[in-house]
Amino acid sequence: MKRVKVGLIGTGRIGKLHVENLSVRIPAAEVVAVADPFIEGAKEVAAKFDINTVTSDYKEILSIPEVEAVFICSPTDTHAQCIMEAAVAGKHIFCEKPLDLSLDKIRMVLDAVEKAGVKLMVGFNRRFDPNFAKVQQMVKAGKVGIPHILKITSRDPEPPPAEYVKVSGGIFLDMTIHDFDMTRFVLDTEVTEVYAKATVLIDPAIGKAGDADTAITTLFFENGAIGSIDNSRKAVYGYDQRLEVFGSEGMVMIDNNTPDNHTYYNKKGSHGSLPLNFFMDRYVESYSIETESFIDAVVHDKEVPVSGKDGLMSVAIGLAARKSVIENRPVKLNEIL
Amino acid sequence: MKRVKVGLIGTGRIGKLHVENLSVRIPAAEVVAVADPFIEGAKEVAAKFDINTVTSDYKEILSIPEVEAVFICSPTDTHAQCIMEAAVAGKHIFCEKPLDLSLDKIRMVLDAVEKAGVKLMVGFNRRFDPNFAKVQQMVKAGKVGIPHILKITSRDPEPPPAEYVKVSGGIFLDMTIHDFDMTRFVLDTEVTEVYAKATVLIDPAIGKAGDADTAITTLFFENGAIGSIDNSRKAVYGYDQRLEVFGSEGMVMIDNNTPDNHTYYNKKGSHGSLPLNFFMDRYVESYSIETESFIDAVVHDKEVPVSGKDGLMSVAIGLAARKSVIENRPVKLNEIL
Amino acid sequence: MKRVKVGLIGTGRIGKLHVENLSVRIPAAEVVAVADPFIEGAKEVAAKFDINTVTSDYKEILSIPEVEAVFICSPTDTHAQCIMEAAVAGKHIFCEKPLDLSLDKIRMVLDAVEKAGVKLMVGFNRRFDPNFAKVQQMVKAGKVGIPHILKITSRDPEPPPAEYVKVSGGIFLDMTIHDFDMTRFVLDTEVTEVYAKATVLIDPAIGKAGDADTAITTLFFENGAIGSIDNSRKAVYGYDQRLEVFGSEGMVMIDNNTPDNHTYYNKKGSHGSLPLNFFMDRYVESYSIETESFIDAVVHDKEVPVSGKDGLMSVAIGLAARKSVIENRPVKLNEIL
Amino acid sequence: MKRVKVGLIGTGRIGKLHVENLSVRIPAAEVVAVADPFIEGAKEVAAKFDINTVTSDYKEILSIPEVEAVFICSPTDTHAQCIMEAAVAGKHIFCEKPLDLSLDKIRMVLDAVEKAGVKLMVGFNRRFDPNFAKVQQMVKAGKVGIPHILKITSRDPEPPPAEYVKVSGGIFLDMTIHDFDMTRFVLDTEVTEVYAKATVLIDPAIGKAGDADTAITTLFFENGAIGSIDNSRKAVYGYDQRLEVFGSEGMVMIDNNTPDNHTYYNKKGSHGSLPLNFFMDRYVESYSIETESFIDAVVHDKEVPVSGKDGLMSVAIGLAARKSVIENRPVKLNEIL
Repeated sequence: MKRVKVGLIGTGRIGKLHVENLSVRIPAAEVVAVADPFIEGAKEVAAKFDINTVTSDYKEILSIPEVEAVFICSPTDTHAQCIMEAAVAGKHIFCEKPLDLSLDKIRMVLDAVEKAGVKLMVGFNRRFDPNFAKVQQMVKAGKVGIPHILKITSRDPEPPPAEYVKVSGGIFLDMTIHDFDMTRFVLDTEVTEVYAKATVLIDPAIGKAGDADTAITTLFFENGAIGSIDNSRKAVYGYDQRLEVFGSEGMVMIDNNTPDNHTYYNKKGSHGSLPLNFFMDRYVESYSIETESFIDAVVHDKEVPVSGKDGLMSVAIGLAARKSVIENRPVKLNEIL
Repeated sequence: MKRVKVGLIGTGRIGKLHVENLSVRIPAAEVVAVADPFIEGAKEVAAKFDINTVTSDYKEILSIPEVEAVFICSPTDTHAQCIMEAAVAGKHIFCEKPLDLSLDKIRMVLDAVEKAGVKLMVGFNRRFDPNFAKVQQMVKAGKVGIPHILKITSRDPEPPPAEYVKVSGGIFLDMTIHDFDMTRFVLDTEVTEVYAKATVLIDPAIGKAGDADTAITTLFFENGAIGSIDNSRKAVYGYDQRLEVFGSEGMVMIDNNTPDNHTYYNKKGSHGSLPLNFFMDRYVESYSIETESFIDAVVHDKEVPVSGKDGLMSVAIGLAARKSVIENRPVKLNEIL
Repeated sequence: MKRVKVGLIGTGRIGKLHVENLSVRIPAAEVVAVADPFIEGAKEVAAKFDINTVTSDYKEILSIPEVEAVFICSPTDTHAQCIMEAAVAGKHIFCEKPLDLSLDKIRMVLDAVEKAGVKLMVGFNRRFDPNFAKVQQMVKAGKVGIPHILKITSRDPEPPPAEYVKVSGGIFLDMTIHDFDMTRFVLDTEVTEVYAKATVLIDPAIGKAGDADTAITTLFFENGAIGSIDNSRKAVYGYDQRLEVFGSEGMVMIDNNTPDNHTYYNKKGSHGSLPLNFFMDRYVESYSIETESFIDAVVHDKEVPVSGKDGLMSVAIGLAARKSVIENRPVKLNEIL
Repeated sequence: MKRVKVGLIGTGRIGKLHVENLSVRIPAAEVVAVADPFIEGAKEVAAKFDINTVTSDYKEILSIPEVEAVFICSPTDTHAQCIMEAAVAGKHIFCEKPLDLSLDKIRMVLDAVEKAGVKLMVGFNRRFDPNFAKVQQMVKAGKVGIPHILKITSRDPEPPPAEYVKVSGGIFLDMTIHDFDMTRFVLDTEVTEVYAKATVLIDPAIGKAGDADTAITTLFFENGAIGSIDNSRKAVYGYDQRLEVFGSEGMVMIDNNTPDNHTYYNKKGSHGSLPLNFFMDRYVESYSIETESFIDAVVHDKEVPVSGKDGLMSVAIGLAARKSVIENRPVKLNEIL
């Protein structure tokens, strides 16, 4: 079998996950080079998965002719530059979300990608989760009729460190961005207006960093539906990821995944397991399918399932939400775009 | 509206419940007389529900011409005598289960009832519970196809007092009898063979009284299906009453009723309410529908939904189960009948 | 037992329900008079429950000295006048929601009630539902810690007739008002700001009547929590009433009630019952407890559990929501109050 | 990392699964040789996973010095011979269940293994399933108190072909054997008596082959508990694997795994996914953990988690069940052992 040779940039937590999936679960791919300024981490990954080339400079990867595709898993502020260079080098690109925090930069990047004729896929892994995918399929198949109301609950088990918060772009561009993408995926329509309310209820340090840790976002969609997303940076009971679509013919909802399906009854009540706590456990399957989908698109020259436009729109909604909180008013997407 | 005038014999716990249902929930009935040797209890009930005639002698009730129907809620060893006299007096009869512990006596009673041309209904209230009734309807409608396996879990929250155990007829005739009746109701077939294993795991006093507190009964049915009933006299988490029918086209199961539908998540897990703990809470609706069904059968001269034969068969299965435990072998019903 | 003598004004659907509960389930009460301009309906109710006085003029009821308490179940636009006259007549008052659609009128009414020294309870029956009550108790007991996010889903099985919609005061004052009250009940705090988005997705006739049938309302609370309510006038799968409170120490949610607890598995999937479809089935218990609570407050001279202020505040939130939709901006409660 | 070199005998369905797990998921193992008389199948597997040695003769594998451990996945009637030779060759042995259908042969095998001082692990994969493992842990931790009742539901989605049935040893030794092992695992006690009832309700061809397709087995345990297992060869709704342990302090039960957690509500009811249909999907994780456990025991010279005695006892219970059906009476294990 011909294998797509992959170079991966950024061997942090998410980069390691992609290397493992590419190496172990996707026979059609082969990681041949990894890059990270923190060279020790890169070396460790390379050793574990028998990867020949290890470098601290991602440009070196782009210069390897046999590398057909790159995975960009470096910090957000490097994404745009990496993508542009990778596009010029003729590599297909998988990039973690968000593409960038500036719409102008994203547009520039998308132009470069288009000119180069390479593929660009954005890492919205939840689209590949069996639960979310099931909802999307059912909505598309008309099971709920015309969608009226979309609800997403998205809560992290623990807030990120304050230092991370400062450079994260804020809760809407760092966390809710996944939910914004999910609304577009599930409803297959665009957001036209956003009203968001955000507050600091968990960690004052997050407030000091200029961010919020708790938010409710109301959304209005081109197809007439309305939606609500609630976010929290800290659910003591674990990673809480639920979604519900209500429409003229019915409703579909998904619940969390748990490590087992036991129920225990004693004098005090009935008891069950908590949701899987860590996003890498919860989304282990979605990451694997996501990476496979990208490789599949490269191998068979198909359209990637998450486009550059998807990357652009989710950031735009995030920026609208941020503006809405600051000005305490609904913000139309065309004020942003 | 014409009201059926009812006399009630035995104002203990279950008798009181019937008086209340007849008085408050069933406009077509009216309790005009109650009898109990413990006259103080009878008087209290009568006062609460404006009942004119109170007596310590049930024969007095049978002699009241306007009384059309009697409810027999006295101890089991008085049932046969009461029914026979009531039949002779031309009263329609509702009798709590079991009719008697002797098949010969039951047959005599059924003969008397038939000769008198009165109605006799046996108090298998669970047939009227919305959960069990739903299963019976679905099985009857062919939803599970041909039934293959029937499973019943039936566990009490607390064992009865040892004194009661001594006169109860044993776990199979006192407790499992409800489940035996349920198998016939749900599958609409007869039991042909029984194998039961019983043991004492909860209260040694029950063992000393010659009874068991934990049992598994395997049943074979005329229609080819097989079944299993598990019983315990003490489930610390409450009254556990579940049933499952598996067949060629599917399976239907019912779960317990809970006082509310909350789920609570904290650091330790997810938590919910326990099953309703007391049979009068769990079966409040079934008792009410049961009584109404009997009154309805009297008013409109319809067949009663639980017949004398139902009363006979459930005792026969119980006797077979008891014999099976003693002899540690499967017992055919025609060894008993 | 001494019985509170009750006069009931308005023998429509909800009035009939109260008469039945007062007559059949609450021994401490006795309905002695009913009034309704549609005299035939009133007569029918009176006949069924042996009520002596039937009149088309509610003033007649207020003039009966033995009547201690009145139930006002007439149309909304008559509530204020009825309450004021009942207060002057020295009767304790149970009034269906809303008290009125004008805050000024409600204030006038509350003044009159206070001067008269009579009790006034508003009919927010859901506070007495075992599910909602459980959540309130758990929140009060600190089970979720400090509340951060409150979510309510409240969907009707069928939209009301267009004629009703015209006089209903609109979705927020007719339907969401229950949810507004629920937020105050569960969180024991006040709403400070409202942002509502409403749209017409179900029935254009509702839009022509100047109302909406689908809405999402974002709420901000004095205690720092934020909340979201989603409403629809038509859920094809039945009456959908759920609530969730998320806080620093956990989360509690409630699910709908179903007629039974069966699960059916066949080739196509697993299947269960729908939520109870009609509000009178769903809230049968809450109406009964509600009425009992009022009678109990009268008998034992206790505070009523749902006060006039509760009636005032829920209308104020509804008016803020309506204003928010019209002006498409968040509205502070103190703009309204 | 030092890798355990593995030879695998029998590249049928289950053999392939072990090769994949050993190659892809278990870094500490390396498959260096595969054997199967159907050489084409063996070659295909070898090609896919870069295995150097492929042979039609398993003896060849046993003669490779570097092979430390063998996986025996050939037909049941070859197990004993393979194990004995592998033991003599000094290889550690993983063998699929059952070890053999004759207790004498199994005893001979266990002797040989003991003499050789090699490890022997039997493939009861379900012990490693997160659901079953959770129950075992909770019972061991005393969460249910003293166990009173154990219930297992174990139903296949489709009956095996009639040819397979003929050589399978019958439903108890082919299918229920997993459940027999589970009772010993979960309760950590021995079975003392068995009563089984088996019948043909699904496929007459199974009856012609001298086997049954539907069974209920009652079990008695050394620790005083009683148990019931119900089996069916065909559940139209999928692979149904549930277990419940009831004891003096509580009850724990496990439900099936589903491909997703969606619930869909439409006019007709609420609907969810079916259990995972195929045992390789359902137990994908358990097979992986099982294999890993064996390799881990080899690497670190630890006791294997499923011993030869476990293999012996499960067959003994199966033989007792078969005898019980034939003689329609309870059979004590010491009649068999």
